[in-house]
Amino acid sequence: MRGAILHAPGDVRFETRDDPEIIDNTDAIIRMSATCVCGSDLWDYRGINPVSEPAPIGHEYVGVVEAVGSEVTTIRPGQFVIGSFFASDGTCPHCQAGYQTSCQHREFVGAGGAQAEALRVPLADGTLVATPEIPSDELLPSLLAASDVLGTGWYAAVAAGVQPGSTVAVVGDGAVGLLGVLAAKQLGAERIIAMSRHEPRQRLAREFGASDIVTERGDEGVARIMDLTRGVGADAVLECVGTPESMQQALRSTRPGGGVGIVGVPHGVSIDGEQLFYSHVRVQGGPAPVRRFLPELVELILNGEINPGKVFDLDLPLSEVAEGYAAMDERRAIKTLLRP
Amino acid sequence: MRGAILHAPGDVRFETRDDPEIIDNTDAIIRMSATCVCGSDLWDYRGINPVSEPAPIGHEYVGVVEAVGSEVTTIRPGQFVIGSFFASDGTCPHCQAGYQTSCQHREFVGAGGAQAEALRVPLADGTLVATPEIPSDELLPSLLAASDVLGTGWYAAVAAGVQPGSTVAVVGDGAVGLLGVLAAKQLGAERIIAMSRHEPRQRLAREFGASDIVTERGDEGVARIMDLTRGVGADAVLECVGTPESMQQALRSTRPGGGVGIVGVPHGVSIDGEQLFYSHVRVQGGPAPVRRFLPELVELILNGEINPGKVFDLDLPLSEVAEGYAAMDERRAIKTLLRP
Repeated sequence: MRGAILHAPGDVRFETRDDPEIIDNTDAIIRMSATCVCGSDLWDYRGINPVSEPAPIGHEYVGVVEAVGSEVTTIRPGQFVIGSFFASDGTCPHCQAGYQTSCQHREFVGAGGAQAEALRVPLADGTLVATPEIPSDELLPSLLAASDVLGTGWYAAVAAGVQPGSTVAVVGDGAVGLLGVLAAKQLGAERIIAMSRHEPRQRLAREFGASDIVTERGDEGVARIMDLTRGVGADAVLECVGTPESMQQALRSTRPGGGVGIVGVPHGVSIDGEQLFYSHVRVQGGPAPVRRFLPELVELILNGEINPGKVFDLDLPLSEVAEGYAAMDERRAIKTLLRP
Repeated sequence: MRGAILHAPGDVRFETRDDPEIIDNTDAIIRMSATCVCGSDLWDYRGINPVSEPAPIGHEYVGVVEAVGSEVTTIRPGQFVIGSFFASDGTCPHCQAGYQTSCQHREFVGAGGAQAEALRVPLADGTLVATPEIPSDELLPSLLAASDVLGTGWYAAVAAGVQPGSTVAVVGDGAVGLLGVLAAKQLGAERIIAMSRHEPRQRLAREFGASDIVTERGDEGVARIMDLTRGVGADAVLECVGTPESMQQALRSTRPGGGVGIVGVPHGVSIDGEQLFYSHVRVQGGPAPVRRFLPELVELILNGEINPGKVFDLDLPLSEVAEGYAAMDERRAIKTLLRP
């Protein structure tokens, strides 16, 4: 089969690779219907995470099951499935508590490289969610978004404690931040402040439910949020970037007793204990346990209640994966969908 | 009147001071029934917080109202009252949200020095809770404990998310940690692991509801908690110390999705963003909004349902305040009660 290989920073190639095979009896092999490029792939693409050797890349996927291992009981060949970027057994205490990305037997699905024509998914029963029938092509982008960015934005909103009536601020206008806006809206937020300087992203944020746009950053960004909330701060803030600046933006924009949901993978971030203490702000983050939310999200999509697929503003054949990365790196695209 | 003055690290003296006076129309003056020495006073006494000039000290108090300002409407002279170490107006958005220690008009009551015969309490209506009648002498220690250490342990348990059935670990065996055990028990925790190496404190922890005692610290302490929780971690951990070591102990003992409630004032603590992220642990701390819990805590004490006053194992005349500090500093006493 063919798929993407990241050779070095800025150098992603479409190449022939070995077909994935069943390794464990709990595996499934899926034929990719669509995959995409994640903001977190850019950490590798930009060399911020070291790239030591050429490796498959990509961890977002929807597809049709081609084969399953002998111990797989709930997933069958021919089913259309969506899964999270971490495989999880669904039975350990952490899975049962809803933290499947901390599963005691978790495996990173992306190790197999989802930007490819086919993919091995470990722990298929615990990881994959099958739709009742093969969905129409127009639903593919939204279902694919559920595989990571929608579930991640959703977790950010849940971790931040968004409630009906909440005032929410979203730091970061990438696909995750934009879908954090959508999640906050679905969870009943009354006011949603999106922080963005990019006109097309501002437009999409408004479409997803943002009531206010803040273009300022740093001290000015905090002051603007304080202005908009009468000096109180937001009830819930979604940190969807992962830099020291964005973390400060989030912590300082939150009211005492409010929450920050952190889904931007922290790079060089440290939180001063005294600042956190005196802020009274509640903080929770982590690799989103997307699997917890998938059944609900898939249903919302199949019922046409949400359309998270709008975050894809570039749709390319998988063979043009290199351009897909470049467009996102240069912020010409919010998110690239790739079709094998 | 007479009261304590901290002159320099290790040098606290009982001296004559000016009588407190009504400064703002919202003030009350109380005649002290009992006061005490707090673990956080030791940060000053030990010179860890700089002591730049002689200053009154102490922030825990119960007493009888002697006078009130012209705008005080709910508190009357002659009432027995308990209050928190931060005065709060009770009406601002932060007070309304239950974070009275972040009140937009908060004042540190301790600035007046509660280890004295009398004390000015600002914002009396928002700050003080009056009992229906003057309580009996034997209830004084427990009511005094409610002024800070009980409310602080209680907040730690609430912030950590203790629920009926929870497995809880408590880091720190000072008065706050011990009362965190009591709070966890009251909130329905099924299993309470107290971390303590001191036999008298272990005994009190057991009396307050601890089911297990862990004497190990650091990596061994974490391993012990993991053993006791079948490798899962505690649902809720109370951080009642405030050092980098205790913070690590707390974070690493908590299950993914569990919570750490931080009430040990952080000294030199910083939390690595990546560690926090990948742990999936929820963190909240701060100066405990004791005022939120006071009505409930006072009722539990007056009804004889809890006896937090047991943390006082040294009872001295206020004139012997210096010995009260020394005994706590040398860990000869858990907590010193002082009677004017």
